[in-house]
Amino acid sequence: MDHALRLARRGLGNVWPNPAVGCVLVAGGRIVGRGWTQPGGRPHAERMALDMAGQAARSATAYVTLEPCAHHGRTPPCAESLIHAGVARVVTALTDPDPRVAGRGHAMLRAAGIEVTEGLRADAAAALQRGFLSRVTLGRPLVTLKLATSFDGRIATAAGESRWITGEAARRHVHLLRLTHDAVMVGAGTARTDRPALNVRGFGSVRQPVRVVLANSPLPPLPPEDAGHGPLWVLPGPPAEALAELGRRGITRVFCEGGGQLAAALLAEGLVDELVGHTAGVVLGGDGRAAVAPMELAALADAPRFRLAETRALGGDVFHRWVREA
Amino acid sequence: MDHALRLARRGLGNVWPNPAVGCVLVAGGRIVGRGWTQPGGRPHAERMALDMAGQAARSATAYVTLEPCAHHGRTPPCAESLIHAGVARVVTALTDPDPRVAGRGHAMLRAAGIEVTEGLRADAAAALQRGFLSRVTLGRPLVTLKLATSFDGRIATAAGESRWITGEAARRHVHLLRLTHDAVMVGAGTARTDRPALNVRGFGSVRQPVRVVLANSPLPPLPPEDAGHGPLWVLPGPPAEALAELGRRGITRVFCEGGGQLAAALLAEGLVDELVGHTAGVVLGGDGRAAVAPMELAALADAPRFRLAETRALGGDVFHRWVREA
Repeated sequence: MDHALRLARRGLGNVWPNPAVGCVLVAGGRIVGRGWTQPGGRPHAERMALDMAGQAARSATAYVTLEPCAHHGRTPPCAESLIHAGVARVVTALTDPDPRVAGRGHAMLRAAGIEVTEGLRADAAAALQRGFLSRVTLGRPLVTLKLATSFDGRIATAAGESRWITGEAARRHVHLLRLTHDAVMVGAGTARTDRPALNVRGFGSVRQPVRVVLANSPLPPLPPEDAGHGPLWVLPGPPAEALAELGRRGITRVFCEGGGQLAAALLAEGLVDELVGHTAGVVLGGDGRAAVAPMELAALADAPRFRLAETRALGGDVFHRWVREA
Repeated sequence: MDHALRLARRGLGNVWPNPAVGCVLVAGGRIVGRGWTQPGGRPHAERMALDMAGQAARSATAYVTLEPCAHHGRTPPCAESLIHAGVARVVTALTDPDPRVAGRGHAMLRAAGIEVTEGLRADAAAALQRGFLSRVTLGRPLVTLKLATSFDGRIATAAGESRWITGEAARRHVHLLRLTHDAVMVGAGTARTDRPALNVRGFGSVRQPVRVVLANSPLPPLPPEDAGHGPLWVLPGPPAEALAELGRRGITRVFCEGGGQLAAALLAEGLVDELVGHTAGVVLGGDGRAAVAPMELAALADAPRFRLAETRALGGDVFHRWVREA
């Protein structure tokens, strides 16, 4: 299952509106098939693994990070494919909360006489699938908020100079993070001031993330959609409604890069699931531009709290990642 | 020498106005003596190691992290003690820049027919001795500036609430850091507002650091010196002159805990040698109290830069330490 989870991870940012799933087929102690959800969401992981295995899938055990689908969409249901291929056993990590599946995949397999074991590495799979689960259960994508700041939490000098606070490794890391999200989002102020490209550079030819700008009034022109730039969606606020709209459009993972107003609004409404920090060893002082706008907190106990997930040196900067307290 | 450096480290914060030195005596492939500068600065490391070794010091090799002293102070010079003990060879990491020594210790040993090797692990020794070297060569102690902040660089809410932003592990770590410095320093504003104890708690009976407050006008009463509180020195500004006065009084390592005005002044004048950050996973917003006061930087290139020395998780917070770019 750990192997299947690693395969699933390849799809993050690349397969919306579908979940990023991994599948490993084992027969006679040997891996006979491996698959993961393909760019755009199809083919599914099970289909890829079965195609690789061919006849070797017969009597195999399938490890799948999510319950196989049970509904006819543009492809036949994966549960049906597994049955037809003759697998003997299916082990899954999570039940698919999508109402079109929701246990019916497991039931279909059992009805065909296949042994089904559920819940293996459920926590790891839930963490990996947090975006998909959020979209299905909360109606909005996972939101990762990234702030690259000075040691004292500033994103620019008082005059607005911000290039560069963090080093090259941290800036390249931002592109990797964009790549693993379905959409990159900024507020209107940032779109006007920085005219950001909001695309992935330096990783070859990739599926570019959707560019989302939250704005209630017209924006200056941004680059049109092309091979190097994802679709551009300008949505009106408030943020909670914009996120619901993104959920309806199939987005499962959003990477928010500010600015301070949007960051404060998302945080105040409890809409940030993960915080990513890149902290540089430079000090800009209290007149530098704050990373987060005023939040008017009445008490420290009201401040949004996050649990540390990881931290390490990244080039000359510190990378730290936090997840929302449950 | 690595062993001697580890011994030397025990003296940090505890031996001012003397340097924290370590000494290891090796004879016949065996360690026959170990010593480090004792609390208050005497006895010296060499004396401790020779006393432990006794007759076994004859023909031994002495590894010392700093050139043995050559001047008669309250104790006979260590170079003389090594000669009398009959050691065959002395290996040192650094020349003592103190004008009363400055090579004369090495010369005295060589004149007595002892083989002397200099410069082993010089970089590590210089890092360890940065406070002592700063006092002798720049006339001021090493300054470590510590800031415990929210994810967005705030030290309190707009209303001033600050207990607690960081967790227990980080707060205990602050006491360990105080313990390894000769003095703990704050500005007048912090002394008035927070009435900080500026002592070491939770580490048993220790030599308490000197409490330094930079203030140009009278302060509210702070606890008097006793077993749990070090001497209280109130010095007028500006910071550079106060640090020079601390250097004259023998202080080699100062731990500055703010507030924002003092932090900004020290940073602006290039007087911060090490930055220590404790970053918590809480966001307070742009109306929270800034960790560093306005610095009026004209350009990003003018901002003080530091090189990352280490980072790791510390309880639920991130600890990061930076040293000034040379």
